[in-house]
Amino acid sequence: MSFLIVISAPSGTGKTSVVSSLLQVDPNINLSVSHTTRPPRQNEVDGHDYFFVDRARFQEMLKQREFLESAEVYGNFYGTSRSWIEEKMAAGKDVLLEIDCQGALQVRELYPQALSIFILPPSLEILKQRLEQRGMDENKVIERRLSAAREEVSHVHKYDYLIVNQDLQETVQQIACIVRAERLKTIRQLAGQRELIAQFA
Amino acid sequence: MSFLIVISAPSGTGKTSVVSSLLQVDPNINLSVSHTTRPPRQNEVDGHDYFFVDRARFQEMLKQREFLESAEVYGNFYGTSRSWIEEKMAAGKDVLLEIDCQGALQVRELYPQALSIFILPPSLEILKQRLEQRGMDENKVIERRLSAAREEVSHVHKYDYLIVNQDLQETVQQIACIVRAERLKTIRQLAGQRELIAQFA
Repeated sequence: MSFLIVISAPSGTGKTSVVSSLLQVDPNINLSVSHTTRPPRQNEVDGHDYFFVDRARFQEMLKQREFLESAEVYGNFYGTSRSWIEEKMAAGKDVLLEIDCQGALQVRELYPQALSIFILPPSLEILKQRLEQRGMDENKVIERRLSAAREEVSHVHKYDYLIVNQDLQETVQQIACIVRAERLKTIRQLAGQRELIAQFA
Repeated sequence: MSFLIVISAPSGTGKTSVVSSLLQVDPNINLSVSHTTRPPRQNEVDGHDYFFVDRARFQEMLKQREFLESAEVYGNFYGTSRSWIEEKMAAGKDVLLEIDCQGALQVRELYPQALSIFILPPSLEILKQRLEQRGMDENKVIERRLSAAREEVSHVHKYDYLIVNQDLQETVQQIACIVRAERLKTIRQLAGQRELIAQFA
């Protein structure tokens, strides 16, 4: 009985490294590939990093209720395809969505059984340092990301699990444990153990 | 924020080995020591294996509502002292109760947040073999234990987690994971991370 895993974290928390290590550790997890109208960055591959679509196509998919959740971020659209996810889950895979709080809440309305995890940086100061060290962004962009981080963190109590990313490997182990525990829930085990339980009837 | 862990398993499932390994793996877990009117077996130490009390004392404690749960099993009384558990939890320990289904249901009424885990043997046949191999019990006793196993398993859907004890080490790792995940629940983390979250307010 597959399930959805929703992970949110402010930009600069190290979410991308955590997720890529997690996928190595637990091969039954498939990372959801979002659709976006944002142009591909260097090295980004269509169908792997994102499905890159134009605005007209995105609007069409939106109209056909093809997205489980969608959002506009800094002028670009992002959306998670419902049919892609349901295909993976039907094949027995657990699907990981790396989305912001706004998307997470949308997903939970449709899939109340989804597992949600929020990752915090060890401190606001460290988050600032990480964003500055990237060297990719102007001060104005960093300010915008910090402001978004504040907004995200204000919703932390709506998530099932809360992890502080002090150490990458520790964080990955913690999430792997959460997913493993989820699979052991009676509600998920009953179908698979039906024959064993019947021996005691 | 400490919590109770309730583990139930039919006699012969290997629960005692699982629990003693778990306590090695996770030193924050304290095993609850029950009170009993059963006479001590060889090597059993008062205050470690059980608190051995006579019937009069047990009845007195029962009357004073000192027990979180209590049961009569094969003519002997067993009970879990509420004050003992609350002391341990106040000291930040998670407390493990190794009790049957009847007790587990009583505990859950008083502590709805308790974590409950049911351990199944790999098959009814293997359970029979294990009970026979012990060589401790007559056939009649084995039959009684098998009948109790059937009764226990009929309540499996009331537990949060279900584990099949195929392999001791695997089972211990699974329970350790469940406990670790429980500690990462937002509801348990919020108090400890209050200062960190306040940095983003």
